[in-house]
This record gives sequence, C-alpha cells and structure tokens, in this order.
Amino acid sequence: MHILITGAGGMIGRKLIDRLVRDGQVGGKAITRMTLHDYAAPGKPAVSYPVATSGGDVSLPGEAEKLVKDAPDLIFHLAAVVSGEAEADFEKGYRVNIDGMRYLLEAVRAKGNKPRFVFTSSIAVFGGDLPDPIPDDYHQTPPNSYGAAKVVCEQLLADYTRRGFLDGVGIRFPGITVRPGKPNAAASGFYSSIIREPLDGKEAILPVPLTKRNTHASPRAAIGFLIRAAEIDGARLGLRRNLNMPGVAVTTGEQIEALRKIAGDKVVARIRQVPDEVIMKIFPNESVRFDAKRALSLGFVPDKDFEEIIRIHIEEDRGGKFVQ
Amino acid sequence: MHILITGAGGMIGRKLIDRLVRDGQVGGKAITRMTLHDYAAPGKPAVSYPVATSGGDVSLPGEAEKLVKDAPDLIFHLAAVVSGEAEADFEKGYRVNIDGMRYLLEAVRAKGNKPRFVFTSSIAVFGGDLPDPIPDDYHQTPPNSYGAAKVVCEQLLADYTRRGFLDGVGIRFPGITVRPGKPNAAASGFYSSIIREPLDGKEAILPVPLTKRNTHASPRAAIGFLIRAAEIDGARLGLRRNLNMPGVAVTTGEQIEALRKIAGDKVVARIRQVPDEVIMKIFPNESVRFDAKRALSLGFVPDKDFEEIIRIHIEEDRGGKFVQ
Repeated sequence: MHILITGAGGMIGRKLIDRLVRDGQVGGKAITRMTLHDYAAPGKPAVSYPVATSGGDVSLPGEAEKLVKDAPDLIFHLAAVVSGEAEADFEKGYRVNIDGMRYLLEAVRAKGNKPRFVFTSSIAVFGGDLPDPIPDDYHQTPPNSYGAAKVVCEQLLADYTRRGFLDGVGIRFPGITVRPGKPNAAASGFYSSIIREPLDGKEAILPVPLTKRNTHASPRAAIGFLIRAAEIDGARLGLRRNLNMPGVAVTTGEQIEALRKIAGDKVVARIRQVPDEVIMKIFPNESVRFDAKRALSLGFVPDKDFEEIIRIHIEEDRGGKFVQ
Repeated sequence: MHILITGAGGMIGRKLIDRLVRDGQVGGKAITRMTLHDYAAPGKPAVSYPVATSGGDVSLPGEAEKLVKDAPDLIFHLAAVVSGEAEADFEKGYRVNIDGMRYLLEAVRAKGNKPRFVFTSSIAVFGGDLPDPIPDDYHQTPPNSYGAAKVVCEQLLADYTRRGFLDGVGIRFPGITVRPGKPNAAASGFYSSIIREPLDGKEAILPVPLTKRNTHASPRAAIGFLIRAAEIDGARLGLRRNLNMPGVAVTTGEQIEALRKIAGDKVVARIRQVPDEVIMKIFPNESVRFDAKRALSLGFVPDKDFEEIIRIHIEEDRGGKFVQ
C-alpha cells in the first residue's frame, strides 16, 4: 500500500507517520511506500520501503499532479492554514484551504485509481445557534473562514466520492489538545497553552471564561481517528461522508482542575485570565459538544477523560516529566 | 439603485426583470440603472433609465470584473448550469456553478461597495435520509453535483458576508413549477412537463411514482422570494444567510388531480407513466418538504396551493387559455 500524506511536517502529520511506521500496515495491508509532502520537505522516517519527500505549495497549479503521479492507494490530506491565520489572511486561507483541496481532488480524478481519501475537517464547521449537544445531522454554519473552507471541502469530497472519482472520508476533528511545541496561529491555541505552558514552567493566558466548553481529542486519539477513517468500509457511509468525531467535552475550568489533579496547585498558578475579545468573536459559542453517535457506532474511539489527555501529553511529548 | 442580474436571459431572469420594470423600485429605492448578463446577451426592457446588456461566460476569468465595474447596489446571481446538465458534464457544472460564483464574489470584494447579493440556491442541497418535514437547521447532504455546488456557493456567500465584503442572502428555491416553454436540462423538469405539456395538447411523461412528493413554487412566488431577499434587513439573518423557502408540498398524484380539477380528464389523459431509473437516482427521496419557519417569519410568501400554481401558469404563460 502506497500512502500519500500532505501536511506531513505538521504535528499531526509527524505523529501519524510515527504510528504508520510502528504499525507497518493499514487495515491489514502492508505499507510498501510513502509520499510525504509539506510546505518545507518533511524528514524521512527510517523504514525499508521507499519514501519520497517533497516541499512546495499544494495550492499552486501542477503541485498536486506531482504528488499523485504514482497513484497512491491512501491519501491523508492534512495540509491547511489554521483558523487564526485564515482569518487574518483571507486570500491565503482560501488559496490553501479551498484551492489546495480542489487541485488535489482534480489530480486524483485525472489519475483515475480511486484511492481512499481521508480529509481532516473540523468542528469549526459549526457556529451560530448550537444545540447542546450538537446532533450528527445539524447544519453547518461556520463562524470563521477556516470553518467555511472546511465545509466547502467536505462537500467537494462527498461529491467526488458520489461520482466515483475517489473514496472519501472526512473527519471533523475536535480541538486537538494538548498540542505540543510552540503555540501556532490557531485562534484555539489557548486550549493547549493553558496545559502545556504551565507544565513547562511558563505562564499561560486564558483568554475566555472558565465556563466555556469545548470538545477535545489528544493527538493520539486524533491519529486513531485518521487510521479508522483509512480502514472503514466506505459503503457504510452512504452520501454522508463527513463525520463528527467523538471527544472529551470539558470547560476550560474543568481542564484546569484536571491539570491541578495531575500537576498540583503550583503548576495551575501559572495560568492567568486575560479576556480577549478577538478570540471570543472567532469562537462565540459557550458550549461546543457533540453526540457523535454515528462516529461512535462506526468504531471511532475518543479519549477517556481530560486527565487522560494531559497524561498522554506528558508521556508522549515531555518524556514523562513536567516542571513542578 | 443599480441592479445587476446574471442569468438574466433565463426564465426566472426574464420574469424578474418584468417585475422590476413594473415596480420601478426595490425596498422603496427607485431603480436608476440595470446591468443584464447571460451567456447570450439578453434583450433590453423598454425603460427610461440606462440598461447595459452583455453576453459571455461568467465562469471565465475577467468576465465578473466587467459586470461589477460600475458598482451595482443589488446583485441577483441567477446564472447556473441546471441539475441534469451538471450531472452529465461534471467539469462544466463545477466551472459555471462554483467558479462562476467565486469569480463574481471576488470581483465584488475587489470593488469594495458591499452590495446586497442575492443568490439562488436550491432544495437540491438536501438528500440522503431526510426527515419529513425538513427543519431549517437540517444538514446539507446533496444527492447530486448541482446541489453540492449550491452548498459550496452558500458557504462562500455566508463567509463573504461575515467578512463584510458584501451583504448576502441565499434562497433555496423549491421546484419552480410550472416552468413555461421548452423542457430544459433540469432532471426535475417533469414536475412542470406533466402540467405544461397536457395544457398544450401534448403528451407528457411522468418518470416517478404518483406518491413522490416535492415542494413547489410558481415562478411568480419565486420572483416574490427574490424581491423579499433583496429588501430584507440583513442584520435579521445573523450568520445564517441561506434560507429554505416555503412552498406547496404535493405528490405528483396531487399535482395531476389539481390539473384535473382545472382542466378536466381529457387533459390529464395526456400524461403517461414511464418510470426512469436515472431520474429516480438523481432524486432518491420519496418526500421533500420543509417547515421553512424562518423564511415564513421573515416575510417570504408561498403560493396558496397547487391549483393556484396551475392558474398562474395559465394566466401568465398561456394568455388564460389551454388546449381542452
């Protein structure tokens, strides 16, 4: 099986590659080849099968054709401009998040080998008046350009699938928490920062109220979603190719209490509340959670609770240690 | 007020122009200028104010800029490839229905005058498992490429509105019935043909069961929707810029009985049932109707019943007569 990953150099991309290398197979089929792409060429994993890496902008004409020239059997399209950046730079957001997807879909259609195409969408497709929890058949009214682009891509994915050009599965990631490393330009970055920075001995800013609830998945659970999306029988999805993923729904206050349980008061004391109107405008909903019945019945598995999410971060990204 | 209409040469376009010429104003503002566009240049109405007409393909780069060069205050974007054609010619459907919209939105954004932008979407955005009736907040899972393109455009419209580039209102037309003139390439054309052709003394084919229910609006009601969409206070819509329109929900059997009441058995006898698998696959749902609560509360007015829809056709398109 030949696997193509776009956005392979990002946090999710790198963790996905680690998992694929460890597993050696997807859905019982041995991995025999990888094509890894990102804006800057990603590193090569140490494996016995061929791995091609390349750097470039997938939203430029001609780039996508190069990526699929050897007809990958499985595509993970992770490349995207994140929410804060898409809001700040309208044109770049549309170019990368919409045109990039369209070029890749068209290249796959032209190639004609009908691969499984896993697309990472987001809970940012939901906004406006939201029921609590959000049912699977709720309409998409994104509150930002990032979410709007995700809905557009979901629709293209579903239509290309229906037309028989590929076999698409779109998964709407909850917030990925705890995101390791430096803060990125995602406006939702604070959900991770308030855990990661204090564990690193640094101060973190909480820009929203303690009562604001969001749904989270650890990077490990998110990689599990991607693998499940790659393996699942597409016929079970019918026309509805895009799925709300299950997650752990907690308020920022509950996040902080979970951190206190694991790391103590001194770590929690590094969090400062500084309300930010811009961020609250990008995420205006007080509670965002999902029943995710369909995904649960289709075998997508969430983390157990937010403490588990913090433990996964400490184990996977901090070598089991944190700054007391 | 300067009004731009794309697809101005089509059936809805021509009836909209007639209405605008008759009214002389929209929302209390006098019409002072029109720009009318279609693939082939549409005819000029006899009015005292300037009317520019042009022909061309709005899905080609540069065309949209020409249309908005004089900063229209109100845009009706009606131009589209219909469902049957979009299903038969994938590339043309995407080019006209998606790229055409994108170019026009971009031209409006570049111009910077933030016009009211009325977009005609369709109930084809709904498919798969549908509740009966469909509530306003139901998700969009289009069963065909035409519907997929409409969802994409709705999302672009809402995002451009949210970003402050224009003031968009998208209206999801029910089936427009009775469509006058020759059958077009819409796969849904039979809903009109089974009324129009028998009234014209000709045989008509019913390709679906008598129990299949759809929601209809007369061209006159549809024009009413467009005018209401042009006039409404955008602030009342919030993030949800795309609205299910109200209509008359009847089965094809009920359509035929309404025809019998108005025109008699001899006219009805001209309808022949010939099941068509291709058409049933494009419209797989047994019943498509809406509560349309939001649109009703916002002042969009449907026809009274299907008999009224037939009478409007006889009056407006047949000079009050039909072939007994």
